[in-house]
Amino acid sequence: MRPVAVIGMGKTAFGAFPQKDLRALAVEAGQKALADAGVAPEQVEAFYLGNFAGPSFVGQSHLAPYIAGAMGITGVPCTRVEAACASSGSAFFHGVSAVGAGLYDLVLVSGVEKMTSAETPRVAEILAMAGDCATEGKAGATFPALFALIAKRHMHQFGTTREHLAAVAVKNHANGAKNPDAHMKKVITPQQALAGKMIADPLTIYDCSLVSDGAASVLLCPLERAHEFTSQPVRVLGLAQTSDYVALDRKADITCFPALQAAARKAYQMAGLGPDDVDLAEVHDCFTIAEIVAIEDLGFAPKGRGGFFSFDGETAIGGSKPVNTSGGLKAKGRPVGATGVAQICDLVLQIRGEAGERQVAKHRIGLAQNLGGSGATCVVTILGGVA
Amino acid sequence: MRPVAVIGMGKTAFGAFPQKDLRALAVEAGQKALADAGVAPEQVEAFYLGNFAGPSFVGQSHLAPYIAGAMGITGVPCTRVEAACASSGSAFFHGVSAVGAGLYDLVLVSGVEKMTSAETPRVAEILAMAGDCATEGKAGATFPALFALIAKRHMHQFGTTREHLAAVAVKNHANGAKNPDAHMKKVITPQQALAGKMIADPLTIYDCSLVSDGAASVLLCPLERAHEFTSQPVRVLGLAQTSDYVALDRKADITCFPALQAAARKAYQMAGLGPDDVDLAEVHDCFTIAEIVAIEDLGFAPKGRGGFFSFDGETAIGGSKPVNTSGGLKAKGRPVGATGVAQICDLVLQIRGEAGERQVAKHRIGLAQNLGGSGATCVVTILGGVA
Repeated sequence: MRPVAVIGMGKTAFGAFPQKDLRALAVEAGQKALADAGVAPEQVEAFYLGNFAGPSFVGQSHLAPYIAGAMGITGVPCTRVEAACASSGSAFFHGVSAVGAGLYDLVLVSGVEKMTSAETPRVAEILAMAGDCATEGKAGATFPALFALIAKRHMHQFGTTREHLAAVAVKNHANGAKNPDAHMKKVITPQQALAGKMIADPLTIYDCSLVSDGAASVLLCPLERAHEFTSQPVRVLGLAQTSDYVALDRKADITCFPALQAAARKAYQMAGLGPDDVDLAEVHDCFTIAEIVAIEDLGFAPKGRGGFFSFDGETAIGGSKPVNTSGGLKAKGRPVGATGVAQICDLVLQIRGEAGERQVAKHRIGLAQNLGGSGATCVVTILGGVA
Repeated sequence: MRPVAVIGMGKTAFGAFPQKDLRALAVEAGQKALADAGVAPEQVEAFYLGNFAGPSFVGQSHLAPYIAGAMGITGVPCTRVEAACASSGSAFFHGVSAVGAGLYDLVLVSGVEKMTSAETPRVAEILAMAGDCATEGKAGATFPALFALIAKRHMHQFGTTREHLAAVAVKNHANGAKNPDAHMKKVITPQQALAGKMIADPLTIYDCSLVSDGAASVLLCPLERAHEFTSQPVRVLGLAQTSDYVALDRKADITCFPALQAAARKAYQMAGLGPDDVDLAEVHDCFTIAEIVAIEDLGFAPKGRGGFFSFDGETAIGGSKPVNTSGGLKAKGRPVGATGVAQICDLVLQIRGEAGERQVAKHRIGLAQNLGGSGATCVVTILGGVA
């Protein structure tokens, strides 16, 4: 693989935007990414789109050419990838792989979801389709219920507490309040988090991420050409996508995600780096417990100590290992299919030193981790600044 | 790109199978393809799945790891691609590209759709999501209506007749009757085709393809390793995926598909071949008029002469350019997301000389053409036997 660089990025704010349809959001993010690199739509050689459930949320399939055409991109491969919440992480994986393998030079990768058009019960139903509908779905399990099982087991086995979960929520809300593009800019206290409405014991409303509209986009090219387009390319140092069983009951141990561990191992190996080399990370905090498991599976904290690590402030912006400085899915927002590429965008901002109030001191190496379902797809990316 | 070979293939029968769910169909086809090459699931390095609307038809998203896990494939990239009716053509494109670029050696590509679980009006609604829902869909246009517009214009401009359309149906029904895996094994006369119930003038029920369940699968590897797995590898000589606007009203001329023409041009160029070199083809006859346009856009017949060419018997099994010897979408059946890979399977059978009653005399070079929507995605593949 030849080295690949992110040369442009663009995203919409995340939130509830009744006046913007799915295509308008995706076009806005895509055009920003193109403008960021000074690239015209006609120069794009392939387009990869991550979208989880556009057909279910807004009644439109065939979204890749639908969005590409509106940006003036035709005549090239335009492909929608669906991997539940890891849809655009997977699109990014395939886009980088294709540029790395020499298939294309200029590739646009976007993620988009428009969720607020559906009523809440329908949103839960659509999200549940990412689980095993023949078993979990039939039994009535939604994702809060599945992650509550994971949390319960983690608490039982490792002494993780509700205070630990709340610490993740408090930190991500604090970070989101510093992010002008975040869906929720509301600082909360641990007391508020603990007193939140119970959704699926032990997860309260503050342990769950949001239902959002939004899009994010990055433009890729071979590193050797990056300086034609930007003075601040960000290099893809490591990258892996892996899979596992969809149903939670097929897993031997539900306190970890084997797909996450495998993706991390492969990405670290490709980058020639380890967890200690990572300056900051964006991880898939669809629920607070998912962030705790992620920081363990990524090797930031020892197994079982993710909750304590979070509670001790190590993952705060000023901590030893800042995690989700953007506010994460928890506060930045969770337009499902956009989460993976949005993580890349947020790391690019940090690595470039453009993260404003949430800028971290050490920002040379960033890691993104995007999870699909309860761990059936995982994408881990390691990005680094180019000196 | 290093040369890529198809080393295994497997498909289910196409039809209505109330007792088989989507996953069972996909697993059956995948296991047949693996067995055909003597490859174990653990050897598969990546899995690409083409599926149009599993979430809408059967309520299950995240289908790539869902199906892969059931075959014993975990820990590797498993990715669902959605490009309307060209979903598995696109999955095949990305699988071949990845092997060709050296990313993996053993890649499984499958396509699946389970359509008969939904009521007919709901099927039409789900299919219509592949058009532009904000314009065409809102105006009430379903796909039969859109292709009826194409047919009307083609008739007006080139003198194509209803008898020409009927000739395509009669030929594909005759071929399907020779295919043990076809959904419809019913020989029809031109009179029957012309007297069929009108769906969208000038298209009768016999001009429309079927609503089917089914799956198809192929296993890929670098050509240099093909003989480890099979004595009859089939080489991918040329391949392209292209895109165009989704809405028909954005096209300057609706009697052709620019994405099809572009994909054909690129695939011919990659193969170093032209239309005259193609011994037989599987084209995307979602409607009879689509086959007529395809054989023109592929260069088998001059522009405007596709109807005459078909009526004259040139595309029959014994004709100068056999098209859809499998029965095509018209008679073999149309499980939407499986159509692209199923075309590859049918060409592999012909090239290997294993097509039974429908075997053509000259079967060295085969071409497959998979179309998404009314032409927004097109994949063209050229396959050849290895001496």
